[in-house]
Amino acid sequence: MNGARAVIRTLVDAGVEVCFANPGTSEMHFVAALDDVPQMRAVLTLFEGVATGAADGYARMAGRPAATLLHLGPGLGNGWANLHNARRGRAPVVNVVGDHALTHKRLDAPLESDLDALAGAVGWWRRSLTTAHVGDDVADAVAAARRGQVATLVLPADVSWSEGGALGVAPPDRPARTVAVPDLPLGPDTVLFLGGDALGAEELLAAARVAAGTGARLMAETFPARMARGAGLPDVPKLPYPPGPALAALADVAHLVLVGAPAPVAFFAYPDTPGSFAPEDCTVHVLTEPGESALAALTALAERVGGDPVLASASVPTVPDRALDPQVLAAVVGAVLPEGAVLVDESLTSGFGLFPATAGAPRHDVLSLTGGAIGDGLPMAVGAAVACPDRPVLAVQADGSAMYTLQALWTMAREQLDVTVLVCDNGAYAILEGELRNVGAAAGGERAGRLLDLGSPALDFVSLAAGMGVPGVRVTTGPELAEALRQAFAEPGPHLVDAVLRS
Amino acid sequence: MNGARAVIRTLVDAGVEVCFANPGTSEMHFVAALDDVPQMRAVLTLFEGVATGAADGYARMAGRPAATLLHLGPGLGNGWANLHNARRGRAPVVNVVGDHALTHKRLDAPLESDLDALAGAVGWWRRSLTTAHVGDDVADAVAAARRGQVATLVLPADVSWSEGGALGVAPPDRPARTVAVPDLPLGPDTVLFLGGDALGAEELLAAARVAAGTGARLMAETFPARMARGAGLPDVPKLPYPPGPALAALADVAHLVLVGAPAPVAFFAYPDTPGSFAPEDCTVHVLTEPGESALAALTALAERVGGDPVLASASVPTVPDRALDPQVLAAVVGAVLPEGAVLVDESLTSGFGLFPATAGAPRHDVLSLTGGAIGDGLPMAVGAAVACPDRPVLAVQADGSAMYTLQALWTMAREQLDVTVLVCDNGAYAILEGELRNVGAAAGGERAGRLLDLGSPALDFVSLAAGMGVPGVRVTTGPELAEALRQAFAEPGPHLVDAVLRS
Repeated sequence: MNGARAVIRTLVDAGVEVCFANPGTSEMHFVAALDDVPQMRAVLTLFEGVATGAADGYARMAGRPAATLLHLGPGLGNGWANLHNARRGRAPVVNVVGDHALTHKRLDAPLESDLDALAGAVGWWRRSLTTAHVGDDVADAVAAARRGQVATLVLPADVSWSEGGALGVAPPDRPARTVAVPDLPLGPDTVLFLGGDALGAEELLAAARVAAGTGARLMAETFPARMARGAGLPDVPKLPYPPGPALAALADVAHLVLVGAPAPVAFFAYPDTPGSFAPEDCTVHVLTEPGESALAALTALAERVGGDPVLASASVPTVPDRALDPQVLAAVVGAVLPEGAVLVDESLTSGFGLFPATAGAPRHDVLSLTGGAIGDGLPMAVGAAVACPDRPVLAVQADGSAMYTLQALWTMAREQLDVTVLVCDNGAYAILEGELRNVGAAAGGERAGRLLDLGSPALDFVSLAAGMGVPGVRVTTGPELAEALRQAFAEPGPHLVDAVLRS
Repeated sequence: MNGARAVIRTLVDAGVEVCFANPGTSEMHFVAALDDVPQMRAVLTLFEGVATGAADGYARMAGRPAATLLHLGPGLGNGWANLHNARRGRAPVVNVVGDHALTHKRLDAPLESDLDALAGAVGWWRRSLTTAHVGDDVADAVAAARRGQVATLVLPADVSWSEGGALGVAPPDRPARTVAVPDLPLGPDTVLFLGGDALGAEELLAAARVAAGTGARLMAETFPARMARGAGLPDVPKLPYPPGPALAALADVAHLVLVGAPAPVAFFAYPDTPGSFAPEDCTVHVLTEPGESALAALTALAERVGGDPVLASASVPTVPDRALDPQVLAAVVGAVLPEGAVLVDESLTSGFGLFPATAGAPRHDVLSLTGGAIGDGLPMAVGAAVACPDRPVLAVQADGSAMYTLQALWTMAREQLDVTVLVCDNGAYAILEGELRNVGAAAGGERAGRLLDLGSPALDFVSLAAGMGVPGVRVTTGPELAEALRQAFAEPGPHLVDAVLRS
């Protein structure tokens, strides 16, 4: 058994059964070995950022890692931004990055680069140096990923092609630790700040019982990796993104109880605005940290002090019969979202109305942009659809961000994934127009404004989708959008809906 | 003067007058300051890899650095692969990467990452820590770039927005050093191996005189950053890419004289194939290294031993009247290439015929893929066109590689750049089909083959171009391609020609 086959078989034995691949020469033995291990599903992407973002989305929905197959330092570089998002959301990912043969490194060939620095800058990494141990190295990478990390195994070409590979065995997945629940001051001036694993359905229900029994408020982190939502679950607000509303939301809080979430801080610094959102005289308590079971802690707390939870009733907006704007778009999504949907939210400014509009929709999961590196939405939709082939995936996607990793559409078409891409087409980096004001920069100059404008030339997302084999339609009103989304959900395979939001 | 303005004005004073920009929140003050410094031309890109590749192409043609404006670690990550190409080709680039405010770093906000590791892994870098010194930091970055490096200045948001900035002054550009020319054994068993700055027109003419006077052969490195070619210049062959032909080309060489080039090595390792291409009993001499003047050394040598050089006569292929294949494509390019063109060659397998077919074309420059990180071609074409607005730019571009940074088309349309994109549309990662054989991997399996195939669904490059505002046409025969290219060269602005190469 050569090294490549040992890698793939060890991955499969550890439950890593999907590989999002963007291979090159140094990965050819890995590619060849795929024919011998049919349990590994290889999904081709046209750009490494799609592969890594798909692995991020897969991990969030499957709860276990996918692998990526990348090509040397530049391939890892291309995939780095979405690995950053995975890292910030603690999504497990196993990267296999092919590199020059051990015998070739000293020659400083053109593709030689400081690959190890890139790998180390985003999580666990190891360079596999002997074929005999490559299986063990893979097992260690899987174990590292299962601890909520991006794990990168650098695989030299000759380690891959040489014979003498042996399988490694990843240790069994460890459940999240149960922590003792301390006495907490729970009352109307307390916020349970929920993030990470505290945003699943059972966890939210337990938290709602605590809130009902104590008067404490619930609040979710601004960009959860995955959050359960919809009718029958508590309607937990998210901490707002802009500093003003965020500070206001926490202004009267005396006790902030962190449950799987870090203490809330501003996404960016702004002149004369605090970076930390908790009031200075507020006491911060930690109920659970990542790796500790939010469900166990919240359940214990609910058994101690819980009451009858307040849950969202089934109630969806009506479709507004007018031209699209962000509120109309949000109402339409709320009106048509199917049961069990995975809503991948990289809508940015156009999606600020989405959250309230979908609170009473059928049960669904929301994936958001954990690390702020735009261009994760469409790739995550690929990964979520591969992980959950029986669930409809809706990617609500800002236009500027869509252009980062638009190649994801091609993989959706190739794999005939049930993804509906809803492009929020406002023809601008609208978020930056706001940010230009937020940082106090003097806006309004023509040259500065030109750097925030996507309108000349206008992007034609229907043409772009057609170019990659995805049928698309452009809509301008609420009813048109509703009709287009319903059709997209009803038909198998990917669809793109270009929602024109010109204000 | 705030820090941002000091940065831009110091850049402009140092001759850095173009900024390829992909800004975010932490760069808003830089964006705002553009309105105050009209000498800086800001060119918006839709993806950081376009910005960095454009800076690479600009530097190769202008001979001086452009700046890029990137957004924190993920932005630098997205641009890293083309910075790798710039580094391998010694193209000067100055990156300005916005980062969190100094006061914000400790909060570990979502976009926090090990940006410094990414920057250090590709060249010179510094984190600017005080507004008073930011101008000096920029000047040092420019000086580092002028030494043929990628130089990255990390610019915290508050260093940028605070008042108290002062201009820095970059030291004057240093000319390449002149080295003493040793006695060299020059005869029919000698190869002058030319790379880097040795491939300009004057350098090639001097080298040809040396060859004529001594019988020594001339050979160029396989992927030159920039090479002058065409009628009136010597027709210098490039070292072949595949190991077999490369070893054969150097088999009888007793003396290898390096002129601005590293010793030739294989791009990748292959089982049972040497990685170093010079024969074991060959003596390697160094005439000039990077930073030393190839022109001075070759001229001195030519004055000592030179003869009448053999130069390519003006002679172009006829347009073959048949369906396109790589040979027909190459002949057509040779037949229609305009005087003064910049030929950006990321054609990979489809372009192996290009070099002989263009030897007698009107004088032009060729830019090739120095670092092997695919996706530099279209961005380089953007940069070359910005650097040389009066020269036609032809990007001969492999299809799979085109999809890495296709967003470059939008910037071509926005800036109305005179770029003709010729897509070599063979519907496959054809180079990998060959590499799968080269590494000795067992090919032919259906699952492996699917990872090398771009044909399902087929990419429609005309639709993709239309989606970004670039007119396109699909051609299938030699005469159709010739007509499409002639029209594209005759009209201002960008055009895409999708050359279907189905064999």
